[in-house]
Amino acid sequence: MSDKTALTPATHTAPPAKFSHGVRKGNILQVAGQVGFLPHEEGKAPTPAGPGLREQTLQTLANVKAILEEGGAGWDDVMMIRVYLTDVGHFAEMNEIYNAYFEEQALTQPPAARTTVYVGLPAGLLVEIDALAVLS
Amino acid sequence: MSDKTALTPATHTAPPAKFSHGVRKGNILQVAGQVGFLPHEEGKAPTPAGPGLREQTLQTLANVKAILEEGGAGWDDVMMIRVYLTDVGHFAEMNEIYNAYFEEQALTQPPAARTTVYVGLPAGLLVEIDALAVLS
Amino acid sequence: MSDKTALTPATHTAPPAKFSHGVRKGNILQVAGQVGFLPHEEGKAPTPAGPGLREQTLQTLANVKAILEEGGAGWDDVMMIRVYLTDVGHFAEMNEIYNAYFEEQALTQPPAARTTVYVGLPAGLLVEIDALAVLS
Repeated sequence: MSDKTALTPATHTAPPAKFSHGVRKGNILQVAGQVGFLPHEEGKAPTPAGPGLREQTLQTLANVKAILEEGGAGWDDVMMIRVYLTDVGHFAEMNEIYNAYFEEQALTQPPAARTTVYVGLPAGLLVEIDALAVLS
Repeated sequence: MSDKTALTPATHTAPPAKFSHGVRKGNILQVAGQVGFLPHEEGKAPTPAGPGLREQTLQTLANVKAILEEGGAGWDDVMMIRVYLTDVGHFAEMNEIYNAYFEEQALTQPPAARTTVYVGLPAGLLVEIDALAVLS
Repeated sequence: MSDKTALTPATHTAPPAKFSHGVRKGNILQVAGQVGFLPHEEGKAPTPAGPGLREQTLQTLANVKAILEEGGAGWDDVMMIRVYLTDVGHFAEMNEIYNAYFEEQALTQPPAARTTVYVGLPAGLLVEIDALAVLS
């Protein structure tokens, strides 16, 4: 039967704890919660793409995409995107950024379902996103 | 290979952002986070079923069900229900409403697993629910 | 086609509401949100394993594992673990406990993906965990 494969894109560190950035088993691919950290540089601590929602959201989406691609998938395969924000006041702006981003991705399949809720995140982080994909 | 289908019941607006109310691909169906908005009326803004937990929970469950049915599924196919409340004090009442609702649905399969957590939601909304189904 | 089976380990009560502690259908197994309650004793109310993060996290993981095993699965089959904490200040300690726990589990497959967010939980509970598994 099919094995579970860990997905660790070149842009990501080895995971800092006993979890995988993403896993694929058969046609199911799960992306772990991503935040807006810039691509990993050897010897540097994880650094957010910027203090604002725009930079962090775009970087977070890029990080999710890198994991999808590492597993042979893309946005078209994503069934569910979970968006965690820290501030209800960020919803409208996140939607604008999200919509513009997905316009550019030129999806050929319907967009994923989504749930957005407002939670606590570590200091300095405004957004976290995870994703579940089903490959064709 | 199987395509991803967007599920947009007649009761729902076209999604306000680049996401789907639900998607189905093969035997997997994911319902996006639903809230207690009444069925869409042309030219009217989304309106919660009421200010209270009961009306909102029942409407939210009806909205989830509409998406399941649009995808050829029903509550019996649901594996996981995520319930987001805004107030720990609402847990007991939500459970009562939830139990009575599912009694009425006359499930022929075991009920779904569930996780309930307490988060922030946009002003006026007390509950959000999403669901993952696996069709037979 | 395959039926949905409710997973109720001997350590668990009958669920207190119309949900299952876990369900399996075909090769998909979903574990409901678990907390750090000790194994059920007839006539006693649910009791956390202790007031602290360590006891609760370890008990919660044991509770998830019991449900996986009831469904014929184990940690190696888990694709996604969702960790809900109540305090951002608990992240480092949770990671230590989590890593040590999974070292001991002697996984033969890559660890699951994970999302950790900070939410409200009922009084006295510091952690809740759910899991999605795909069996081979």
